[in-house]
Amino acid sequence: MSILVVGSVALDSIRTPFGEVEEILGGSATYFSVAASFFGDVRLVAVVGEDFPSEHVDFLRSRGVDTRGLRCLPGRTFRWKGYYTYDLNEAHTLDTQLNVFEDFDPEIPEEYKDSEFVFLANIDPRLQLKVLEQVRSPRLVVCDTMNFWIENKREDLLETVSRVDWLLLNDAEARQLAQDPNLVAAGRKLLGMGPERVIIKKGEHGVIMLAGEGFFSLPAYPLETVFDPTGAGDTFGGGFLGALSRLGKEGEGEIRKAVVYGSVMASFTVEDFSCRRLSALSMEEIEERYRAFSAITCF
Amino acid sequence: MSILVVGSVALDSIRTPFGEVEEILGGSATYFSVAASFFGDVRLVAVVGEDFPSEHVDFLRSRGVDTRGLRCLPGRTFRWKGYYTYDLNEAHTLDTQLNVFEDFDPEIPEEYKDSEFVFLANIDPRLQLKVLEQVRSPRLVVCDTMNFWIENKREDLLETVSRVDWLLLNDAEARQLAQDPNLVAAGRKLLGMGPERVIIKKGEHGVIMLAGEGFFSLPAYPLETVFDPTGAGDTFGGGFLGALSRLGKEGEGEIRKAVVYGSVMASFTVEDFSCRRLSALSMEEIEERYRAFSAITCF
Repeated sequence: MSILVVGSVALDSIRTPFGEVEEILGGSATYFSVAASFFGDVRLVAVVGEDFPSEHVDFLRSRGVDTRGLRCLPGRTFRWKGYYTYDLNEAHTLDTQLNVFEDFDPEIPEEYKDSEFVFLANIDPRLQLKVLEQVRSPRLVVCDTMNFWIENKREDLLETVSRVDWLLLNDAEARQLAQDPNLVAAGRKLLGMGPERVIIKKGEHGVIMLAGEGFFSLPAYPLETVFDPTGAGDTFGGGFLGALSRLGKEGEGEIRKAVVYGSVMASFTVEDFSCRRLSALSMEEIEERYRAFSAITCF
Repeated sequence: MSILVVGSVALDSIRTPFGEVEEILGGSATYFSVAASFFGDVRLVAVVGEDFPSEHVDFLRSRGVDTRGLRCLPGRTFRWKGYYTYDLNEAHTLDTQLNVFEDFDPEIPEEYKDSEFVFLANIDPRLQLKVLEQVRSPRLVVCDTMNFWIENKREDLLETVSRVDWLLLNDAEARQLAQDPNLVAAGRKLLGMGPERVIIKKGEHGVIMLAGEGFFSLPAYPLETVFDPTGAGDTFGGGFLGALSRLGKEGEGEIRKAVVYGSVMASFTVEDFSCRRLSALSMEEIEERYRAFSAITCF
């Protein structure tokens, strides 16, 4: 089934305790697309500048990602520069250059408007709403967000959250948006804001999911080295929605399986910079790690 | 089967965002004993002062705990005073009065020396070694520790760790003892120090267990209110070893089930101050929460 993602495509410069890279392929929509491409048909809406290396577009196409919605505008591509210390849960930003992303105004190509799954990656909630106005009765809409929008565009964000099916965000964002330090209580409050389901990413501590009175908790895959956590959350989103689209229905069992696939994909992403690990990944490795998740969690 | 615990019995004064209490029953051996008493025969070795309220001893006895090893010495009982903010993962100490606990020299009563399970709660590693010298070929020895001993008695602690079967400690202690910020890598390093199995408690994030190449990860029970986290780790230990003694063998399946029971017991303890919740707990509630763990983790 078709999956539309609207978000950022960026050039990242990153330092971790294990290495340093300059201007590698990054961005929420990038990680999402590449992860989802293992399971379904991905349609990408994002913007880059004239300086964006064509090899990155070639890479996305080689993964089967539909890039007709990737606009190239005069100017420079969005750049993010940051670093991580041994506490890999926290990214420290050194520099953010929005460049062409500053005036991003997502226009959904006509041929994307019938997309069945829609993922609104972390962008201005007003733009997320504009996307919702353009798509035609999608089967499922999921949105992400970040601290900046929670702080600065809370009202717009609450409107978006009330209009999507499911909300996907990380633990700090969940606490901040719900204004509750207890994550379970925060999740329940977020459900009260409208979405039918809330999925909270906890990095090295895994993920929890709330729906009605229901609760699901999955630990993270145990990695002895987390090389670079950048993109893990968006990779989770891509693996999650991609797998769900492949499973073909949204029962509790399928959704839980999709959460595991999302976690599998995220666990690969953090093993190297950018999409390097994903680009070398086979479906066999994905299924093997899925089975490993069963083995480490069953009792 | 018989379970020997050697540790502290204390009077705690605690403030959390939800309430405040003065001089309530606390201590590592207390929480362990009460939790384990739901599953097996517990033998307690600890020391209190002349001011220790007899009602607390009565309570332990009412739980079936053998208190013949609880010595009462001239002087005052060990006291701890502390508080928690909304980040309930971290205890802030206001005052520690060791009192009679300062000269604690655990003497194992003759009738305890054949104990099958031995839990060395968090005390001076030299004293943990002294306990090991007194017991006769126990079936299983598990030890806990804390940051103070890791910092100040590292060599003694390493000797203890090399001589026990399993090591049980929290995430910060695991990182500190292994000197590795990655918890999985830290766990592997701890295995290299001698114990056959390492169990790492992560508070609200659950627990991980390593043995050889094997790995088990269990999330915590989702609580909307953590009233007071004091004693959760020792309660886990008591529920864990108690359940294991009841299950009667130490296969991977039984050990994982015991980890779930440990987590069940800890999840009850944090719902109120001291042993209040445990003292009102039925086996039916325990089994119900065990089933809830299955429901929230299965996929």
